[in-house]
Amino acid sequence: MAGNSFGTLFVVTTFGESHGPALGCVVDGCPAGVSLEAEHIRAALRRRRPGAGIAGTTRAEPDEPEILSGVFEGTTLGSPIAIIVRNTSHRTADYDALKDRYRPGHADWTWEAKYGFRDHRGGGRSSGRETLCRVAAGAVATRLLDRYGVVIRAWSSAIAGITAAGPDDPAFSFDEIEGNTLRVPSRRDAEKIGEKLKALRDLGDSAGGTVSCMVTGVPPGIGEPVFGKLDARLASAMLSIGAAKGVEFGAGFAAAASAGSDHNDSLLPTAERLSDLVPAARYATNRAGGVLGGIATGMALTFTVAFKPVPSISRAQNTIDRSGASCAIAVEGRHDLCVAPRAVPVVEAMTALVLADLILLSRSDRLS
Amino acid sequence: MAGNSFGTLFVVTTFGESHGPALGCVVDGCPAGVSLEAEHIRAALRRRRPGAGIAGTTRAEPDEPEILSGVFEGTTLGSPIAIIVRNTSHRTADYDALKDRYRPGHADWTWEAKYGFRDHRGGGRSSGRETLCRVAAGAVATRLLDRYGVVIRAWSSAIAGITAAGPDDPAFSFDEIEGNTLRVPSRRDAEKIGEKLKALRDLGDSAGGTVSCMVTGVPPGIGEPVFGKLDARLASAMLSIGAAKGVEFGAGFAAAASAGSDHNDSLLPTAERLSDLVPAARYATNRAGGVLGGIATGMALTFTVAFKPVPSISRAQNTIDRSGASCAIAVEGRHDLCVAPRAVPVVEAMTALVLADLILLSRSDRLS
Amino acid sequence: MAGNSFGTLFVVTTFGESHGPALGCVVDGCPAGVSLEAEHIRAALRRRRPGAGIAGTTRAEPDEPEILSGVFEGTTLGSPIAIIVRNTSHRTADYDALKDRYRPGHADWTWEAKYGFRDHRGGGRSSGRETLCRVAAGAVATRLLDRYGVVIRAWSSAIAGITAAGPDDPAFSFDEIEGNTLRVPSRRDAEKIGEKLKALRDLGDSAGGTVSCMVTGVPPGIGEPVFGKLDARLASAMLSIGAAKGVEFGAGFAAAASAGSDHNDSLLPTAERLSDLVPAARYATNRAGGVLGGIATGMALTFTVAFKPVPSISRAQNTIDRSGASCAIAVEGRHDLCVAPRAVPVVEAMTALVLADLILLSRSDRLS
Amino acid sequence: MAGNSFGTLFVVTTFGESHGPALGCVVDGCPAGVSLEAEHIRAALRRRRPGAGIAGTTRAEPDEPEILSGVFEGTTLGSPIAIIVRNTSHRTADYDALKDRYRPGHADWTWEAKYGFRDHRGGGRSSGRETLCRVAAGAVATRLLDRYGVVIRAWSSAIAGITAAGPDDPAFSFDEIEGNTLRVPSRRDAEKIGEKLKALRDLGDSAGGTVSCMVTGVPPGIGEPVFGKLDARLASAMLSIGAAKGVEFGAGFAAAASAGSDHNDSLLPTAERLSDLVPAARYATNRAGGVLGGIATGMALTFTVAFKPVPSISRAQNTIDRSGASCAIAVEGRHDLCVAPRAVPVVEAMTALVLADLILLSRSDRLS
Repeated sequence: MAGNSFGTLFVVTTFGESHGPALGCVVDGCPAGVSLEAEHIRAALRRRRPGAGIAGTTRAEPDEPEILSGVFEGTTLGSPIAIIVRNTSHRTADYDALKDRYRPGHADWTWEAKYGFRDHRGGGRSSGRETLCRVAAGAVATRLLDRYGVVIRAWSSAIAGITAAGPDDPAFSFDEIEGNTLRVPSRRDAEKIGEKLKALRDLGDSAGGTVSCMVTGVPPGIGEPVFGKLDARLASAMLSIGAAKGVEFGAGFAAAASAGSDHNDSLLPTAERLSDLVPAARYATNRAGGVLGGIATGMALTFTVAFKPVPSISRAQNTIDRSGASCAIAVEGRHDLCVAPRAVPVVEAMTALVLADLILLSRSDRLS
Repeated sequence: MAGNSFGTLFVVTTFGESHGPALGCVVDGCPAGVSLEAEHIRAALRRRRPGAGIAGTTRAEPDEPEILSGVFEGTTLGSPIAIIVRNTSHRTADYDALKDRYRPGHADWTWEAKYGFRDHRGGGRSSGRETLCRVAAGAVATRLLDRYGVVIRAWSSAIAGITAAGPDDPAFSFDEIEGNTLRVPSRRDAEKIGEKLKALRDLGDSAGGTVSCMVTGVPPGIGEPVFGKLDARLASAMLSIGAAKGVEFGAGFAAAASAGSDHNDSLLPTAERLSDLVPAARYATNRAGGVLGGIATGMALTFTVAFKPVPSISRAQNTIDRSGASCAIAVEGRHDLCVAPRAVPVVEAMTALVLADLILLSRSDRLS
Repeated sequence: MAGNSFGTLFVVTTFGESHGPALGCVVDGCPAGVSLEAEHIRAALRRRRPGAGIAGTTRAEPDEPEILSGVFEGTTLGSPIAIIVRNTSHRTADYDALKDRYRPGHADWTWEAKYGFRDHRGGGRSSGRETLCRVAAGAVATRLLDRYGVVIRAWSSAIAGITAAGPDDPAFSFDEIEGNTLRVPSRRDAEKIGEKLKALRDLGDSAGGTVSCMVTGVPPGIGEPVFGKLDARLASAMLSIGAAKGVEFGAGFAAAASAGSDHNDSLLPTAERLSDLVPAARYATNRAGGVLGGIATGMALTFTVAFKPVPSISRAQNTIDRSGASCAIAVEGRHDLCVAPRAVPVVEAMTALVLADLILLSRSDRLS
Repeated sequence: MAGNSFGTLFVVTTFGESHGPALGCVVDGCPAGVSLEAEHIRAALRRRRPGAGIAGTTRAEPDEPEILSGVFEGTTLGSPIAIIVRNTSHRTADYDALKDRYRPGHADWTWEAKYGFRDHRGGGRSSGRETLCRVAAGAVATRLLDRYGVVIRAWSSAIAGITAAGPDDPAFSFDEIEGNTLRVPSRRDAEKIGEKLKALRDLGDSAGGTVSCMVTGVPPGIGEPVFGKLDARLASAMLSIGAAKGVEFGAGFAAAASAGSDHNDSLLPTAERLSDLVPAARYATNRAGGVLGGIATGMALTFTVAFKPVPSISRAQNTIDRSGASCAIAVEGRHDLCVAPRAVPVVEAMTALVLADLILLSRSDRLS
């Protein structure tokens, strides 16, 4: 499978450059019988669009999705679902200055090293705009996951070095996430972070951040050892998002500094059963983050993704031009200040793609 | 592709349970013409075997590899290379007590939740012994990478909460890594960590740790955006290793707390060229860890993997039995105290598999 | 990989229903640097469109392709190439009568057996219109193959029981193929077949036929034993075309009735060499059809595909309706009389997809 | 996926050269809970071994299978099932004469053209002995298919130009197939063919043949349009068998010469239902061979595979040696006279692999 497809049974293929005619995706393998309307895609894309807030770019495209195939009278047919979104905001001239210079922190040079040349307009295929396709595909996966009771929620858990209240903190609220443009789950922290970001913006600088995700309703047993483990698939999904630099599950890196007696999650006694042979299980704690041996425990799936600062900054940086000569660059134009808030729906979408695929795969775990 | 294969062109399939007749792998897609002897596999497996040190298990099997196919007169044929290693140390009785109880921190219950039953002997397929197959396959990949000048080196960068000297510290030495059983790159730190581990062992406890990896000679341009990015593939590879809980590339999670002006790596002026159109590139720093936009920059590839503490501890823990009733468990038998030292060759092997695959894939990047 | 993708490195995913908004394809893995314009796709689609002749349907859509991504200034970028074609001729009402009845010889019932319901308008995804996507993708592959000197030519070799002159017959002419609407390579045979078809049409009946294909310039050595053999891949490609019922390579079914001494192709002495170790080879005959052991010999690749008669006929047939009750059906509307002539460009396109993929795969055959 | 794996969910990877240490397969994706013993594999391999009859080679190896993994206490675990068979009959010296000469009709030269060199001993990986791995894997698939009531039966339908009685002929008997060494389903025809083969053998020649297959109990609805159609998958499977030159389904090539009114199969009225929306279906005839639109109709699946004559003949043939010079070759040693009888279990095994995979894939067709 080439590099622009993801999944084994629920397979997504994405396409599109930032300033080409359109971006889109094909979802192949979605079971027949899922109710799906353009409005489901549209609502998901709306969450990905830049808001009015401090962190986002001011490029504002309508991002109107069109379902080209695979749906008939509001229901998936079982055939591939193609969705496209036209690019309408082609301020290509913004990028002429970048044609022969390589922006630090961007994929300008690596793309040329690989393919011999590139579409320099807005990063081409390496643009953050590519995530639009993932969100559209994720909206389809989410329709399927709804039927299984899976609920995926992500938020900005840290921005610019300020860590926001986590789920165990009373200041944390799922309802607050969409209540501020930074998608920080606590009003208080959102304000603090907002101040910090303004200061960075005034310096012509940008910020990194982390996005955390919690999924409930994950069917125990999903995950495909040993290479398609639940966490391995999610890690691949997360690191495929531009600007991601790390991922950790459950206790994550902190687990590496702890002792076994502190980290292990005990199982709680139960009268419920999965089958004659196997009891149901609940764990007293969830340091594992919902996955053991690469297979879902049924506890909440929790993980955090680290995103580097937005590489486009208006401060001058040193780089080289096509001739190899040193030059300075200051990246003007429409750019996010921190990627985390807008990465929230992307993390959710990629999670949905992984879970939809693994749930379908788990249908073949056993004989009956 | 089912869950036990990895790769697109250089494809590895592994098999084997901890206490079954044998474990092994099939490497399909290795180009013809690579010189390969059983001794290459044997040497790699020797590094994976438990040593005499404090961290390791005392299960000591000879782990003698046999190449069944794909090699003729010391050279790969282009056909699949099958390698098996017999299990000889079947102390199955050790595990009888575990048949009807679920060890905390292990995949005992999740495996049953998925498949309906399990091979309880030593974890079956979810045993750390499964990594033997990866190391054997990695040895094949390494023979190929040798021809490209790729050098992969990993080490224990932190154990039990003690962080060892890193590559920028004068105390760090690549030569020291194999000089102590903990694979810590500084004699001083190895001793400090050894003391800490002894204390944990006396408490019947275990420790987590991190493994860091540095790869030089990576051809710029490898990586398959957008889902087969170099870091996405590596993240998938690392999280597929049992006990891994996180991975970070370059500055990693620290990048999420930094500003763009601090994180971006500048490009250095150069007279060398990749092609008429594209100059060669070197970066002044390497916070990116050798990857931009999912494509190798040619700088050293650097990443760190977090491993949770070994879940098997001799201290009593609460769990449940097959009936769902509460019970205590103290896991006796042969177990590592910390997984990091023995994970070092596994991290290297998985890295080799990813790089071999991406290098072959990059042969199709361009027309000529 | 789900059912609507084809290939390993040069991967095509197709989508679209006969009467949905659009059909299209995504070509992922096409190397960068291939010159490609919409006109290349348009020209290929033009050959697939129904002509004025006796065999074709009268549904005439403009089939205007739009390249949405993957091409920049007339050159492929290395990123996925998405192409769509809008459906404009929605005479949906034609199909209302078919909503609750199952047409014999069509996939109406099997599609419902699989997915629980179907898009009944014009066969939905099982329509012959789906081949449009293959032809568009094949046009991209052909641009790549042009660079290797590969030339693919197919023709109607038999229709309605009348076998046309083959390449060894002086009446055969490649130039004649596009000279008649039946794509029969001999004017004389085209006329004879035309008469036969008219008679069938007058009876409200249809005809089967065969398409033969000859490919020159195939690089020796392509093909991926043992499951991705050149002929296995082509067989899969050909039988994936609607209405195909068989395929044979070289001497084909006749080989099964011959003796080894009659069938084997001798090798001719040569002074040319592939390498120090391996001489170049030419075969005195080509009963093998250009493939031995699933690997290209470099001789012309030859094969023939059998197509069943078009199942839509205006004569009354017995079938059942949704209630399970017996009913008669006479399929009116726009249908081909024989699929062979229009299958010619589809056979060529699928051949191009297979060869492009295998050529890219062969780049990894050997170390250097 | 590299060339030695087959399938999407039920994935088989095979390995091994004719005269290497061992051959084998890994079956990944077999559901847990299937009862499987070495005896099931052994029995299947026994059917593949050369018999005492006229058509077979005299190489007689015990072909003792060993299950290395994936089975615990007689039941599949859900983890990969590795099976190996040691090569014991290494009469390597037989092949020294062939080291520098290319046998007509064999893959000797194409293999070198691809990989630069080859294992010349008995054809190496291109030997018919490779089918042993397929039969072993097919035995696993058959255990799964047994649970679905799928029954696969193949036979020699024509040898050396003599066509045996087909299923509609009273002389045909499934019970007779294993009653003669040629696997011809009629005693009378077996004798006639035996005479013909003896005559060919006396001439130092060989014969081609066809193998037909009939599968009952195929669940309606399996098959993955548009590229993973049931017939496309089978065609790929069949043409991947060495010496196969063609395949046809149902009426096959004869369909290409017929009219629509003769070919279409009518549906029969029924009171049974698949679901509220969809009636059950039976067809009055089965010219389609059990597949419409690439999806199983539930009628018997029928197809025929053409095999070329065994290329190894003791009559002198013209070829070239490594220097490119003309030379004669007479292939002595242990070879089959006609491949059809021994191809029967291979055709069955490959059919089983395709059906097991498609049945598992069909579990994801619909929402519930």
